[in-house]
Amino acid sequence: MPLITLTTDFGEGSPYVAVMKGRLLAGCPDATLVDVSHSVPPFDIVAGAFILWAGTQHFGLGAVHLAVVDPGVGGARRPVAFELAGSCYVGPDNGLFGMVLAEAPSSASAAVELPRPPGVSATFEGRDVFAPAAAALAAGRPLESLGRRLSDGLSRLPARSATVLWVDRFGNLVTSLRPPVSALLVNGHEVRHTARTFGEAPPGTPFLYVGSLGFVEVGVRESRADERLGAVPGTPVEVL
Amino acid sequence: MPLITLTTDFGEGSPYVAVMKGRLLAGCPDATLVDVSHSVPPFDIVAGAFILWAGTQHFGLGAVHLAVVDPGVGGARRPVAFELAGSCYVGPDNGLFGMVLAEAPSSASAAVELPRPPGVSATFEGRDVFAPAAAALAAGRPLESLGRRLSDGLSRLPARSATVLWVDRFGNLVTSLRPPVSALLVNGHEVRHTARTFGEAPPGTPFLYVGSLGFVEVGVRESRADERLGAVPGTPVEVL
Amino acid sequence: MPLITLTTDFGEGSPYVAVMKGRLLAGCPDATLVDVSHSVPPFDIVAGAFILWAGTQHFGLGAVHLAVVDPGVGGARRPVAFELAGSCYVGPDNGLFGMVLAEAPSSASAAVELPRPPGVSATFEGRDVFAPAAAALAAGRPLESLGRRLSDGLSRLPARSATVLWVDRFGNLVTSLRPPVSALLVNGHEVRHTARTFGEAPPGTPFLYVGSLGFVEVGVRESRADERLGAVPGTPVEVL
Repeated sequence: MPLITLTTDFGEGSPYVAVMKGRLLAGCPDATLVDVSHSVPPFDIVAGAFILWAGTQHFGLGAVHLAVVDPGVGGARRPVAFELAGSCYVGPDNGLFGMVLAEAPSSASAAVELPRPPGVSATFEGRDVFAPAAAALAAGRPLESLGRRLSDGLSRLPARSATVLWVDRFGNLVTSLRPPVSALLVNGHEVRHTARTFGEAPPGTPFLYVGSLGFVEVGVRESRADERLGAVPGTPVEVL
Repeated sequence: MPLITLTTDFGEGSPYVAVMKGRLLAGCPDATLVDVSHSVPPFDIVAGAFILWAGTQHFGLGAVHLAVVDPGVGGARRPVAFELAGSCYVGPDNGLFGMVLAEAPSSASAAVELPRPPGVSATFEGRDVFAPAAAALAAGRPLESLGRRLSDGLSRLPARSATVLWVDRFGNLVTSLRPPVSALLVNGHEVRHTARTFGEAPPGTPFLYVGSLGFVEVGVRESRADERLGAVPGTPVEVL
Repeated sequence: MPLITLTTDFGEGSPYVAVMKGRLLAGCPDATLVDVSHSVPPFDIVAGAFILWAGTQHFGLGAVHLAVVDPGVGGARRPVAFELAGSCYVGPDNGLFGMVLAEAPSSASAAVELPRPPGVSATFEGRDVFAPAAAALAAGRPLESLGRRLSDGLSRLPARSATVLWVDRFGNLVTSLRPPVSALLVNGHEVRHTARTFGEAPPGTPFLYVGSLGFVEVGVRESRADERLGAVPGTPVEVL
């Protein structure tokens, strides 16, 4: 069963997502389409890189992951497709794949630059370049046939100090730190409690736990850690 | 065609939904996945119970309904799966299935407690316990093979007086009352008009009608009943 | 592969969408369902007509497009289904299909009025009339068998002067104007710059470009045109 996931900053309910799905199903009619998210903050490549990595971890070999967070659309950044650990990725080479690349057990085995055919929209390559390429890959077309092989590497995210990567809907902070961490400074607040589950934590007190993605997270039982600590994605954190 | 629906409070566009879908499709690759809602208010079991019941009524025999609104994740509440009127339900035994159980023509014919395998996340059993169980059921594995049979009943919602169960996007109030009701007190406001359709109601005046779910609803033609009456989910209503 | 798209104003995460999907899959179990949008502003037929047209352009022959933005539900407007350029459309005949009809290369080749069977909900014909009809069409039932042939035409949108049709998530204004346009007046602001891509535009200055849908759009590089120009859907624009 061909499977294609979609990650964009178009907004839930944007007709542009349906436009891409029309192109995907035209090129691969029996594909299963799964939305990872269309709620990436507009043009936020770092957030998109996290959401793409987090949301696509459990799809099997052969899945195609289409991602479009593309402030430079129509400009110099390259449209790319590549293979990594048995899955394919398609989108702009602007750092959006940085976390997938950094967390993968191996490096990309092949990568191509996708051509822009004449008449392609200068503002919506998701429709005209990325979706057709993703559909072709899902339909079994070999990666190498889609474009010119890249001679250099794919774009990475800039190295950064420890930060809040993401805030979930419950206000929990997913940090970029791996355990073990026993105490953390977040926005001037020391967090020194640790717990395994929310039920074990004292109500109202920020605490550290190892989240389901394998990173250190900060939560507050029966409340929101983001509001208690004044933290948002990108807020720096410091190990104590 | 195996069919799995999803109801959560993770938020539309949360990558955690995609994480569960990855697990579902890994366990049952030809499943059709249908999102009921990921907009259940965070940790709101009563709202989740309503949305789950309302959204899953028309799927046929053999559907599997996965629901995760789980403030006690990792704690004492039991992960369960059960069969009810030809469909299967999977999720935490915390009352979330209370309305499905209360409205069903029969009682659950079988129910099991799902084991927590070693290494399971203490904060995301949706990924590690519920999704694999739902996929196994959709793929045809018998319910009894998934866990230990429950010796007692499933959790119900606490009995409550009449309330607003839900407010739809148009501001209409779905109450917990069955017709016939000829007059209602909502937040100190008497509602004494009734109509069959919005077109029959006088503009600007709150009126009662029998909604599509079979409950008494309160609407205001060309306006919002929730704002006019200051009502939200949980607001008590009284028959006059 | 039968394919059904859905466009409504029910809101993302509304259980009413899932109710319709249950009916769709009951009537056509192997249908692929694609959400175009459930974020049409409540009761906004003009916005719904745009989103339906924009989001359904790239699905192939034989697709069925179900659309429900229906302030007159239960009243006099007719429930209809029709065929246009190889695709079928199902929904209320209230102007919602006006843009699809206006932009199509041909006129509707056949149209029927759908009957309201006894017992149909007066407030949710999406569930009881439109979804069953869409499922029947997707399953291969002929359009003519679904209802009485219309003797007159389908409802159109009222003719309007040039306006902002839609504001995308990035704040760009999609106008109803076709290129070429070299200068535009929006809400008292003259827009005289043009560019092909955002990268070519001067930061902070509103500019005109031809958007991916073929209309003239107004954007601001690294900012939001809607906020800069105080424009919303429906704001008039004037060619200078």
